[in-house]
Amino acid sequence: MQNLLSTSELTKELVMELMESADSYYDLANCKGSSNELEGKILAALFYEPSTRTRLSTETAMLRLGGRVITAVGEEYSSLRKGESLKDTAKVISNYADVVAIRHKQAGSAKEFAEGASVPVINCGDGPADHPTQALLEAYQLYRTFGKLDGLTIAYIGDLKNSRTSNALLKLLSNFGGKAKLLSPPSLKLVEESKYEGIEYQECETIEEALSGVDAIYSSRVRVEYFDDQSEYERLKAYFVLTRELLETNCPDAALLHALPRIDEIPEEVDDWKGAKYFEALAGGVAVRMALLKKLLCS
Amino acid sequence: MQNLLSTSELTKELVMELMESADSYYDLANCKGSSNELEGKILAALFYEPSTRTRLSTETAMLRLGGRVITAVGEEYSSLRKGESLKDTAKVISNYADVVAIRHKQAGSAKEFAEGASVPVINCGDGPADHPTQALLEAYQLYRTFGKLDGLTIAYIGDLKNSRTSNALLKLLSNFGGKAKLLSPPSLKLVEESKYEGIEYQECETIEEALSGVDAIYSSRVRVEYFDDQSEYERLKAYFVLTRELLETNCPDAALLHALPRIDEIPEEVDDWKGAKYFEALAGGVAVRMALLKKLLCS
Amino acid sequence: MQNLLSTSELTKELVMELMESADSYYDLANCKGSSNELEGKILAALFYEPSTRTRLSTETAMLRLGGRVITAVGEEYSSLRKGESLKDTAKVISNYADVVAIRHKQAGSAKEFAEGASVPVINCGDGPADHPTQALLEAYQLYRTFGKLDGLTIAYIGDLKNSRTSNALLKLLSNFGGKAKLLSPPSLKLVEESKYEGIEYQECETIEEALSGVDAIYSSRVRVEYFDDQSEYERLKAYFVLTRELLETNCPDAALLHALPRIDEIPEEVDDWKGAKYFEALAGGVAVRMALLKKLLCS
Repeated sequence: MQNLLSTSELTKELVMELMESADSYYDLANCKGSSNELEGKILAALFYEPSTRTRLSTETAMLRLGGRVITAVGEEYSSLRKGESLKDTAKVISNYADVVAIRHKQAGSAKEFAEGASVPVINCGDGPADHPTQALLEAYQLYRTFGKLDGLTIAYIGDLKNSRTSNALLKLLSNFGGKAKLLSPPSLKLVEESKYEGIEYQECETIEEALSGVDAIYSSRVRVEYFDDQSEYERLKAYFVLTRELLETNCPDAALLHALPRIDEIPEEVDDWKGAKYFEALAGGVAVRMALLKKLLCS
Repeated sequence: MQNLLSTSELTKELVMELMESADSYYDLANCKGSSNELEGKILAALFYEPSTRTRLSTETAMLRLGGRVITAVGEEYSSLRKGESLKDTAKVISNYADVVAIRHKQAGSAKEFAEGASVPVINCGDGPADHPTQALLEAYQLYRTFGKLDGLTIAYIGDLKNSRTSNALLKLLSNFGGKAKLLSPPSLKLVEESKYEGIEYQECETIEEALSGVDAIYSSRVRVEYFDDQSEYERLKAYFVLTRELLETNCPDAALLHALPRIDEIPEEVDDWKGAKYFEALAGGVAVRMALLKKLLCS
Repeated sequence: MQNLLSTSELTKELVMELMESADSYYDLANCKGSSNELEGKILAALFYEPSTRTRLSTETAMLRLGGRVITAVGEEYSSLRKGESLKDTAKVISNYADVVAIRHKQAGSAKEFAEGASVPVINCGDGPADHPTQALLEAYQLYRTFGKLDGLTIAYIGDLKNSRTSNALLKLLSNFGGKAKLLSPPSLKLVEESKYEGIEYQECETIEEALSGVDAIYSSRVRVEYFDDQSEYERLKAYFVLTRELLETNCPDAALLHALPRIDEIPEEVDDWKGAKYFEALAGGVAVRMALLKKLLCS
């Protein structure tokens, strides 16, 4: 494993290896502490597009393994480039770091960067295209909850047209069989080419139908940045609200995930429901990023 | 002690414990070096409102204790939020760090953040409301200079209406008795509700009156951001200038403090006066923040 | 050696000491790893003007020596100042760090900062004036390539009027004799006062003339920020393009350097030419900055 540029690189075998490795780091990430496994190693976090959540999670993963971090965030975009190609920037940065985490608003940017890099590259989100470490984070929470990833029935609810995180999770889980129940506003349905072989799909018409019989729910925020028409956004942002009553009635034993931030689609009253796993998943996110860094730097 | 959200939490006993602990860190902070007392611990510095001085002082305190730091500064504000509540952000960040230092322009923000956090939170300034670590820094300089905090007579000079640092120091010292001599332009007087029991107040009319008989002077910059009328700011910004002659004549043995940056209110000629303590106080600021981090993380 | 504020401080003896010290760090910088020589030391990187390349190189140098880093980048400019003098800022920051690297768009800013600082200061570029660590980086690549700095013939090609990096390299090499062949668009010629004693100068008319008989070429990007007239920039930006054919025909054994980013002046086809040293020089850049930090902090 040289890089992690796309969720499609995450084979079943590799995912399971990372899940098991993440288990071994979970206490370190969660009870907090550090090892010295990556002492002397430097991570460059290049977040051309700011994403505090993903950046701090990745930096913390590196620090908890004893590594160090150099960081460049969004506002330096113009300075980093001055017309320079991403490939040239990668050649430069490869001299400063042992591994690079890159976030960029353009699809394909992580791959372009990796072409110039001589150190491992992690795609931390390249625009609408992909977000493989987020998919690993969600998968790891499912793995911790159910002890497996195979054959799970998951309801994907919300904006499925523009959600790279839903898309990445679907892609990752396509290696594990199972079933996807889809529920979106008509204009935000999952596009056909985002349906992967290996998963059985079912379009749903109501929240009740979507929630019935699922192991887990993956709720996606409707993102204002994809709407030209503000009123259309206002109409759709709270189209499907997962109230505690709906969840307890229709899927009392399910696990509820969300890439966060959640706005209106999950009310605060749900936070202390036993199935609410969206905050708990973040501790696992550090653990699985530790597993990934270890794999990229030491194998 | 779970958090430091407000200066009102700083009891006499706690202040004295921090002063003594700061003494034990002073050489480390000042001669420079590091310990490994907080090895494996991570500080998240979330400065929604930029404040390089307070941020770097806090980060250095953490590093000199062997800890590590992750940082998010102002410009990422929108990205960190996307409509997310501070409480939710706190739940997220609690997974990445062992302690959080937060600066935010809204009064009450640190408290709101702490409601969601499962790790200790330090208020590094929440708008006009409070700035408890700055108060600790000034108090520690007084403690170093006089060997005590009890019964000091201090002249507060400058903008006392809008100065959260003057206000925080008054609040902290209200546990220690003493006397406050107040001198402001008429429109920038200390408001009544900022007068704390335990301190005797005296309004002064002239610089000479204010300086006479004091142990220390706390000079506050008139801050341009609180003026709608630029000409009013220009008129008031150098209303009370503490020249070396005034100081040497009226209070030759006093200590002069200032939260910095100083603009016109203290001329450069004062810098090498023996009573000038405003730069020296910064080394103590690192030491007292080390004491605070140690207290929050190890007790 | 107390600071590095200007290339003119780099005597022949000091340069050679740094080159030899950089040799001893080269494997650490390049194969990657870290020592603990500067454990417990903190570098403050104050980049009022963003420069990701120089900042990350300097931070990495500090980290690979076991030190730690606190950082403030451009966007905080206004907050860091609030009307504060650079000298006052320096007095503040000296309490937080053991060494400061400063970048600022105003000529003379590093010197002004150093006047207030009580710790060593490194000038990482002060506007159009100087950039001594960049000169060290280029000199170190020449030293690695030729085993010496004495008596080299170097073609300086591109914008020589506005290029602080060409200027700094000329100044550094003026201690070592040798010859400079100059080739610029008429409006971007090297100004007379940038010609240093100790170097023999020759103005060239054509690329072929400039390349003939040289040991090395230093190509400088035409920088859009120095042009009021955009069309003039467009006309000049690719005035001299160093194609692979030109290089192989006219100076097959020469080394080609460039401060990067390169835009049109060096086509990508040149990257795998054996003389292309502009990316390789970056690994040496980390090594020579390690040598400098070690020198400033431990001698």
